[in-house]
Amino acid sequence: MKRAHNFSAGPAVLPLSVLQELQQALPSFQETQQGLMELSHRSKTFTDVVDKAKDRLSRLLSIPEDYEILFLQGGASLQFYMSTLNLLAPNERADFIMTGTWSVKALKEAKRCSLSEAIWQPKDGIFNRCPKRKEIRPSEDSIYVHYTSNNTIFGTQFAETPLVNKRLVVDVSSDICSRFIDISKHDVVYAGAQKNLGPSGVTVIILSPWAVEKSREVDSIRQGGIPSMLNYGLMVDKKSLFNTPNTFGIYALERMLNWLEDQGGVDEIAKINNRKASLIYNTIDGTDFWTPHAKKGSRSQMNITWRAPTVELENKFLQEADENGLKALKGHRSVGGIRASIYNACGVESVLALVDFMDDFAQKNG
Amino acid sequence: MKRAHNFSAGPAVLPLSVLQELQQALPSFQETQQGLMELSHRSKTFTDVVDKAKDRLSRLLSIPEDYEILFLQGGASLQFYMSTLNLLAPNERADFIMTGTWSVKALKEAKRCSLSEAIWQPKDGIFNRCPKRKEIRPSEDSIYVHYTSNNTIFGTQFAETPLVNKRLVVDVSSDICSRFIDISKHDVVYAGAQKNLGPSGVTVIILSPWAVEKSREVDSIRQGGIPSMLNYGLMVDKKSLFNTPNTFGIYALERMLNWLEDQGGVDEIAKINNRKASLIYNTIDGTDFWTPHAKKGSRSQMNITWRAPTVELENKFLQEADENGLKALKGHRSVGGIRASIYNACGVESVLALVDFMDDFAQKNG
Repeated sequence: MKRAHNFSAGPAVLPLSVLQELQQALPSFQETQQGLMELSHRSKTFTDVVDKAKDRLSRLLSIPEDYEILFLQGGASLQFYMSTLNLLAPNERADFIMTGTWSVKALKEAKRCSLSEAIWQPKDGIFNRCPKRKEIRPSEDSIYVHYTSNNTIFGTQFAETPLVNKRLVVDVSSDICSRFIDISKHDVVYAGAQKNLGPSGVTVIILSPWAVEKSREVDSIRQGGIPSMLNYGLMVDKKSLFNTPNTFGIYALERMLNWLEDQGGVDEIAKINNRKASLIYNTIDGTDFWTPHAKKGSRSQMNITWRAPTVELENKFLQEADENGLKALKGHRSVGGIRASIYNACGVESVLALVDFMDDFAQKNG
Repeated sequence: MKRAHNFSAGPAVLPLSVLQELQQALPSFQETQQGLMELSHRSKTFTDVVDKAKDRLSRLLSIPEDYEILFLQGGASLQFYMSTLNLLAPNERADFIMTGTWSVKALKEAKRCSLSEAIWQPKDGIFNRCPKRKEIRPSEDSIYVHYTSNNTIFGTQFAETPLVNKRLVVDVSSDICSRFIDISKHDVVYAGAQKNLGPSGVTVIILSPWAVEKSREVDSIRQGGIPSMLNYGLMVDKKSLFNTPNTFGIYALERMLNWLEDQGGVDEIAKINNRKASLIYNTIDGTDFWTPHAKKGSRSQMNITWRAPTVELENKFLQEADENGLKALKGHRSVGGIRASIYNACGVESVLALVDFMDDFAQKNG
C-alpha cells in the first residue's frame, strides 16, 4: 500500500504499525471476541488500557509520582476555559504570555471567569518569536503564568521553560513528548493528542497536587460550583471515567505511547525531531529563494513556516508538491506561505523527500 | 472470526460491516493515501464526511430543514450543563421530569446556572416507570421541559412524547434512531453516540431555530458570556469545526448512519427492535422464575432489566451466560440483577441465543 508524505498540522500522520494495531482491535480486542470500540468503559479490559496509557506517559515524561493524569475530551480549546475555571477564583488572575493565535484564544476564555491579563506580546504585533526569560515580568498578584510551548500556526517554540520562579500552566498541544519538558516545574500541562500522541478527540491533562487542591477550593467558592464535566478534582476522583470517554481514542493514544517507548523514549525522539527540523531549516537558509517566518532562537522543531518569493510561486509549489505525494503543506491562512508539520510520527524519509523537492523547486524557479 | 453476543449498555456492539469499513479507512481513506485519522479536519475529504453524516441523520429522523445538527464532544453529561447554559438566563427555569439517574444528574448540572426544578418524580422513589401525560404539570414560568427519553439504567422508556403544549429538551442517548421521534416537537435533542449510533466520544445535538436564537441572546446576558466551547450559536456558525473534533468518531457515526439507512431506516429498525424486546419480555413474563423491573407501559425497548429469584442465582446466570458467549449482562449496580441492552446493532440472533439460554437456565434452576 502506498502512503503519502503527510505534513498535516493536525490531525497528523501516525505510524503505520500503530494503525495496523488499531485495525486488529476493531473486530475483536485481545481474547474478548468484542471490538475495542464495543467494550464498556467500566470493563477491566478497558480500564487496563487507561492504566497502561498513564504508566507509559509517566515513564516517557518522568511525571512526578504525586501528579495526576487525565484523558478527557474537548481539546486544548476546552482547557483554555477549564484550567482557569479550576485554578482561579473569579477575583484572581493569571499572567498570559502571548505568542500566537492559541495564546490569544486561551486568554479570551480565561477572561470570562477571572481577572487574567497578558504580560508579554510582540511590540510589532507579529508573532515570529518567543520572549526570553528576562523579558517576562509576571505581576505580583498573579497565581500562575500561562504559556503556549509551541505555536503551531506561526512555527515558533520556546527554547526553554520561560520562567523558574512562578507557577506555570502550559499548552503543549503541538510538542508534547517531542522533547524534554520538566513536568515538576509546571502545575498544569495540557495537550490535544492529535499532533504528537494519536488521534483527535482525546485531551491529555497533567495536574500537580497543588492544581488538584486548588480545583477543590475553587469549586467551593464559585457560584453554583464547577460543572461536573469541567471539574479537575472530580475527574481525578473518577480516574477520567466520570462519564464515557473516547475509548477508541484512548486506545490509539496508548498504542502511540507504546510506539514512542519503542523508539527509545523522548530523548531519542528529540534527536530525530532535531535532525528532521535541521534538514528543513538548512534547506531554507541555504538559498535566498526561501524566507523563513520564525526568528532564530524561537524556531519550532515541530511546525516549520516559510515563504517563497511570490504567492504565485507558493501556490505552484503547493500544487506540485501535492502531485508528488507531499501533502498538507499549505500555511495557515493567518500566516500564508508554506508550513511543514513534522511531529513525532513523521518519518525522516518524508522530510528527505520534502527537502529534495524544495531544492529542486528552488533551482527550477529561482 | 468468532464474535460474542454483546449486550453492553454502552459503548455497545457495532455491525461487523461497519467495523470492517473503519479498518479500511485507517491506513488510507479513499484515494488520499492518508488514513482517515490522519486527515486535517479542515480538508474537503473530511468536511464531506461531516456533511454526509448530517444528511443521513436528517433523512433518518426527518429533521426539519431549519434545524441545525452538531457533532461535538463530552457526551450527554456535558449537555446537561451546556443545554441549560445556552437556553436559560440565570434567573430562568426549566422543568425536569425525573425518571432515573440521568435525569437526576441533568437537573444537578442545570441548577448550577439556572433556577430549574423537578416537576415529577416517583412518589416511592423507585425508578420503574415514566409518567403519563396527565401526570405532568409544567410550571407556568418555565421556558421548557426536560426529559430523558429512555433510562439505560432502570430499563424504562417514554411510550410517547410526554407533552404537547410546551417547549421540549430531550436526552435520547440510549434510544436515538431506534424508533420514531417527532423532532419538530422538540427544541433540543441530544445524545451520546455510543449506544445506537457508533463509538463513544461523539455527541449528536439537534437544535431548533429558537434554540440557536436563544443561545445568542443568553450569550449576551450571562456574565463573561458563554465559553466558546460550550456555545451553541458559535458551534452552529463554525459547523461543529470551531476546534478539532473527534474525526474518526464522526466517520464511524457516518458509517453507522449509512448502515441504518441500508436497514430501511428508523421505521424498519423500530420493527426489529420491537421484535427483539418482545422476545425477551415474553421470556421474562412466561415464567415466575424471572421478575421484571420496569412496569408495563414504561418498558424500554433498548435496555431490559430483570431479576432472578436470588442474588446467588443471578451471579450463576451471569457467569454461565458469559461462558456461553453472552457478554455484559450484569445489571447496573444501582438496580442489580440482569440487564440486556439491545440497541440497533444488536442482532436478532443474539437475542434468540439469550432467550434460549434464559429458558434453559430457568428450567434447570427453577
